[in-house]
Amino acid sequence: MSLEIQKIAVIGGTGTLGSGLARRWARAGLSILVGSRDAAKANDFARSLPQQADGRPAEGASNGDATERADIIVLTVPFASQAEILEAIKPQLKGKILLDATVPLVPPKVARVQLPPEGSAALRAQNIAGEGVRVISGFHNVAADKLHKDAPIACDVLIFGDDVAAREIGIGLARKAGLRGLHGGPLANSAAAEALTSVLISINKRYGVDGAGLFITGIEQDRA
Amino acid sequence: MSLEIQKIAVIGGTGTLGSGLARRWARAGLSILVGSRDAAKANDFARSLPQQADGRPAEGASNGDATERADIIVLTVPFASQAEILEAIKPQLKGKILLDATVPLVPPKVARVQLPPEGSAALRAQNIAGEGVRVISGFHNVAADKLHKDAPIACDVLIFGDDVAAREIGIGLARKAGLRGLHGGPLANSAAAEALTSVLISINKRYGVDGAGLFITGIEQDRA
Repeated sequence: MSLEIQKIAVIGGTGTLGSGLARRWARAGLSILVGSRDAAKANDFARSLPQQADGRPAEGASNGDATERADIIVLTVPFASQAEILEAIKPQLKGKILLDATVPLVPPKVARVQLPPEGSAALRAQNIAGEGVRVISGFHNVAADKLHKDAPIACDVLIFGDDVAAREIGIGLARKAGLRGLHGGPLANSAAAEALTSVLISINKRYGVDGAGLFITGIEQDRA
Repeated sequence: MSLEIQKIAVIGGTGTLGSGLARRWARAGLSILVGSRDAAKANDFARSLPQQADGRPAEGASNGDATERADIIVLTVPFASQAEILEAIKPQLKGKILLDATVPLVPPKVARVQLPPEGSAALRAQNIAGEGVRVISGFHNVAADKLHKDAPIACDVLIFGDDVAAREIGIGLARKAGLRGLHGGPLANSAAAEALTSVLISINKRYGVDGAGLFITGIEQDRA
């Protein structure tokens, strides 16, 4: 099923990452549901999005309603909220695809890798969501504020997941956001990209730059 | 102290990674001691290295002897041998710098991230070596066979360690090998680069390429 005819819920969709993705995806013609704890806030933001391909405006809803009405659910919330929000939308997630973008940053030392006991935030998401949900992960390394600007973003998006067809959807979503998505392997491999975000934050501090990213080298453009 | 006047032991120096680094470093004028379980084998390989800046040939020795006689010890052995070899050279390591290049690959699933209970191979190395040893890590993501060729290598080297001065030495060693070395933060962050190697192996398989690597973007050349 092509991305164009699926409904995509962005949970935490009023945050910097979620709103940046929602804006790019809406502009690319995808059908977006903005989810938030506060449905009114979600609606306000949704009204600011570009009109969709079907001529109707993007919509906002509570996290649970957005999940219920979507085919693909993208989770863009802080690590500290991940488990609670997943538990809350778990009944509506069943049988769907969950793209988890959670990065396990533990303040105040966000420049230090601190992976959770499960091995990664993505594996935690799969544990909570249960077997009926196809979990993929991605968008860990893109500086969220860059999604709000029009300049090209020098960063690849590694997509992880045990289901290859679901991973392909994640790669399509990266492309729709103007980024190159790449298969990064099984969900267990998400630890690499999640950990790398702390390394990139460390590099930003050390070298006084804003938004270091990564390119995977050695893949000819036509293979990816 | 500049790299030129220090003695560098490459433990596991007859393997693909170790011999590639030894060759590049010797060619750059550094003083190399090739360490191996088999001193004769180490000597044979050392004799094939370019003559050093001081006009004397590189030397081979047992792992323990090489460690004893060096200032900087570079560990390039398979994950399965890391702990045993570190225990063996531990008495000679004291007060020195250990650059651990171990990647925690667990056959047969080397394309799946399987970090050790300590969090990373580098943290395991620090645990074994003890507090008197300044442990840094790096060179996890460079395809070892590319070190043996003259073509430019499209891969950055992330260097991790809790001691910034020791990290600078690792960055210098990357540069001497013809690569860009970057501060990746504390030793705990080594998990990111170690895990990324399995992702790169997964990418090699998925896209049918040989030796995918990574570039960190967003750092102007003159800052790194």
